[in-house]
Amino acid sequence: MQAVSLPRRAVAVRAEGGVNPEIRKAEEKVVDSVVVAELSKPVTAYCRCWRSGTFPLCDGSHMKHNKATGDNVGPLLLKK
Amino acid sequence: MQAVSLPRRAVAVRAEGGVNPEIRKAEEKVVDSVVVAELSKPVTAYCRCWRSGTFPLCDGSHMKHNKATGDNVGPLLLKK
Ligand code: FES
Ligand code: FES
Repeated sequence: MQAVSLPRRAVAVRAEGGVNPEIRKAEEKVVDSVVVAELSKPVTAYCRCWRSGTFPLCDGSHMKHNKATGDNVGPLLLKK
Repeated sequence: MQAVSLPRRAVAVRAEGGVNPEIRKAEEKVVDSVVVAELSKPVTAYCRCWRSGTFPLCDGSHMKHNKATGDNVGPLLLKK
């Protein structure tokens, strides 16, 4: 068998398929509830990218996440 | 430079930090809206793991995802 000289590349490898790197990792499963009758604004955005600083609400962090990774995720909009 | 013969291993590598592997990848950003007045059930679960076969609804696929990856994600529950 011939040895192959591979080019050096910076390759980031993470746990295969993990979605949430940081939010409430002490919880076995992060589930949130919204009582929709209590929504105050016409539209409220909830995070689905797991990068929001105001999780479970969306704070727009999905934009940075998508740009950095090539992903295409966005929030769930609750409309009154 | 010395050529190095690497052991063969099955290593799954994905885009760093990507969250959504398959859902509506033709869309630049996957955003969904719920008109909460139209919710019919007392509780409706919306997916945040991007693995549901009924996305944007949760179909329980987060359980398999969490088990396979060590992740801890779960749905957003909308309650009437
Ligand atoms: S910050 Fe996560 S979807 Fe907007
Ligand atoms: S299937 Fe995705 S959160 Fe339940």
